[in-house]
Amino acid sequence: MNNSKVSKERIEQFINQYRNELEGSVIPFWMKHSKDTTHGGYFTCLTKEGEVYDTDKFIWLQAREVWQFAKLYNTCEQREEWLEMALHGARFLQKHGADEKGQWYFSLNQQGEPLVQPYNIFSDCFATMAFGQLYKATGNEEYGQLARDTFYSILRRQDNPKGPYNKAFPGTRELKNFALPMILSNLALEIESLLPQDLIQETLDKIIHEVMEVFYFPEEGLVLENVSLDGQFVDCFEGRLLNPGHAIEAMWFMMDLGEKLNRPELIEKAVKITLDTLEYGWDKSHGGIFYFMDLKGHPTQQLEWDQKLWWVHLETLVALLKGYYHTGNQACWEWFEKVHEYAWNHFSDPEHGEWFGYLNREGKVLRPLKGGKWKGCFHVPRGLMYCLQTLERINDRK
Amino acid sequence: MNNSKVSKERIEQFINQYRNELEGSVIPFWMKHSKDTTHGGYFTCLTKEGEVYDTDKFIWLQAREVWQFAKLYNTCEQREEWLEMALHGARFLQKHGADEKGQWYFSLNQQGEPLVQPYNIFSDCFATMAFGQLYKATGNEEYGQLARDTFYSILRRQDNPKGPYNKAFPGTRELKNFALPMILSNLALEIESLLPQDLIQETLDKIIHEVMEVFYFPEEGLVLENVSLDGQFVDCFEGRLLNPGHAIEAMWFMMDLGEKLNRPELIEKAVKITLDTLEYGWDKSHGGIFYFMDLKGHPTQQLEWDQKLWWVHLETLVALLKGYYHTGNQACWEWFEKVHEYAWNHFSDPEHGEWFGYLNREGKVLRPLKGGKWKGCFHVPRGLMYCLQTLERINDRK
Repeated sequence: MNNSKVSKERIEQFINQYRNELEGSVIPFWMKHSKDTTHGGYFTCLTKEGEVYDTDKFIWLQAREVWQFAKLYNTCEQREEWLEMALHGARFLQKHGADEKGQWYFSLNQQGEPLVQPYNIFSDCFATMAFGQLYKATGNEEYGQLARDTFYSILRRQDNPKGPYNKAFPGTRELKNFALPMILSNLALEIESLLPQDLIQETLDKIIHEVMEVFYFPEEGLVLENVSLDGQFVDCFEGRLLNPGHAIEAMWFMMDLGEKLNRPELIEKAVKITLDTLEYGWDKSHGGIFYFMDLKGHPTQQLEWDQKLWWVHLETLVALLKGYYHTGNQACWEWFEKVHEYAWNHFSDPEHGEWFGYLNREGKVLRPLKGGKWKGCFHVPRGLMYCLQTLERINDRK
Repeated sequence: MNNSKVSKERIEQFINQYRNELEGSVIPFWMKHSKDTTHGGYFTCLTKEGEVYDTDKFIWLQAREVWQFAKLYNTCEQREEWLEMALHGARFLQKHGADEKGQWYFSLNQQGEPLVQPYNIFSDCFATMAFGQLYKATGNEEYGQLARDTFYSILRRQDNPKGPYNKAFPGTRELKNFALPMILSNLALEIESLLPQDLIQETLDKIIHEVMEVFYFPEEGLVLENVSLDGQFVDCFEGRLLNPGHAIEAMWFMMDLGEKLNRPELIEKAVKITLDTLEYGWDKSHGGIFYFMDLKGHPTQQLEWDQKLWWVHLETLVALLKGYYHTGNQACWEWFEKVHEYAWNHFSDPEHGEWFGYLNREGKVLRPLKGGKWKGCFHVPRGLMYCLQTLERINDRK
């Protein structure tokens, strides 16, 4: 591995930049604006200045914020205020988040009363992550049990994650979606210590196969969002759909697994897919990475296809740095500098803290919010944190 | 009523323009490109040149195309090719469109096998319209019965239109949506001759009240997309949502009802709401009408909020001409000229026929398609046809 072409000074410059943004801008923004001291849990619908414009509580975002603060506590610094912030959200989730079967609602109102039924299994995935990290932070077995129970419930539901809310007519064209195996690959590592080793092994084997062989089409060099149950390409809107940021995010999950399982060829393949996807998904005329694309170049169903989203760019930065760390591939570093430049110039908001989430194709802010129904305290701090930690590993080797 | 400020020559110029576009560009486009001669029904996913890029069949669009050709036959000219085109789609719908309970699927594959369950009651609304028009065209009682049965099924389902697919948790925050009463107001007129007079009267009274009093908030001068079951504003994403094109479309339905029921005050109110909504929804910096807005100016959930959609502009043209015809209000004519100018300059495609559907905020074509999952042979021809017929009525009075 040869990281020699990038100077130690350059790496240290980035380390400072990512640390300052994380600890000086992003985390203080959520600490200051997102805590609901009246009803518990977090506000996530925040204007660019941090004012609350909507009080509904979306379980994805509640759980992700718990995870984020617990993770900071576990891996950056054991600050009591971070642990307390995580526990604040966890208490609300424990009290209101799940139905009597232990399935997590999609959303609640400010008081914690359920608004939308547990149709969305990703609520459960993020709850597992949250309580898994909190178990690591506290050793409290109650959290461990909740993470474990939710994980098993996900495994039981994984073949029909939407349950009775699944609108597909059975038998005509059954598709499976990339998101669940992708998230499970991350989840299994997150809560590894809570599960029997053989279950972890079996889950990881299956997931790596799904992500890297079933959803990945080597001829095109791309990962599809939906394939038939037997893993074939299906020529319909869902079957042609590409989500470059999603595929790239999955690739750094694969790199983490490659490191853990000591499988360098898995890392190499994940790096290759990252670079190929980025080349394909990069907007050559305006910069930035497209949100959705169609494998055959047809119009996507998604009207927002050409927008530039914060999480896509942060996940790409993480994948590129991890790829560079593991393989020394210079293309990773060059792309990192390019995506870094785009992301920091367009998403970051030095005036009020945190990052904007949604830009139009030309890179102008389309919705001047810092949080909403889908953007909370997660991709920005997680992305900055993993970039920082990976830069430090690169630096340590210099 | 005073239409004197607009010259007869100007009106006749518009009549020619709308007729040429309808009969010379739009209808030929669908006649040529949308007929599936192998499996029946229509292709609606068509590129700008008219090539088929996807073969799935969406019941909304299948039924709307049947309606459109039957309506042309009934109200423009009794061309056999138009009737045959309508019957072509009707045969496919009768064979494949509904489940054993008579509820209409959302989509089928090319062969007619169901893909998506009947979760969407608007499939049923458009099927009712289609078979109602076809009954008028042919006098065939089979079509009349199908329209009637489907209408009664809609009435039975109207309080929980999504049935088992409704994901709202009962009791916390139950909302009702504007779309169903709005469409029923049009539907009741469409199939009037098939229903008992007292049911029509009862349905219309209820619907006019819902549209003009429950969903309309006079202080703001705007129609909301969702209100609580008792008709109150609810401060959440759905509750704050405005869809200017949708509200304006409903207003010309109200004008039609005002004419039929001889209620000039209903027409006056519909004209006022049209103009107020247009003033509010018009993009002052780039022209065109926004797709979605938030009553309090907060970011909408919908990422596509600032796009300019074909149907919004066509429905607005219809409402403005009908408003001008009925009231002689000069503001209607002035707005008509302004919206006409925007629409024809941005959506119309003289090279390949039909109109583009989706523009970005600046008015550039965002998806170069003529048809897709939601755009078929409906809003463009219907809008041009109603504009043409209303211009002729204005002209006849000169």
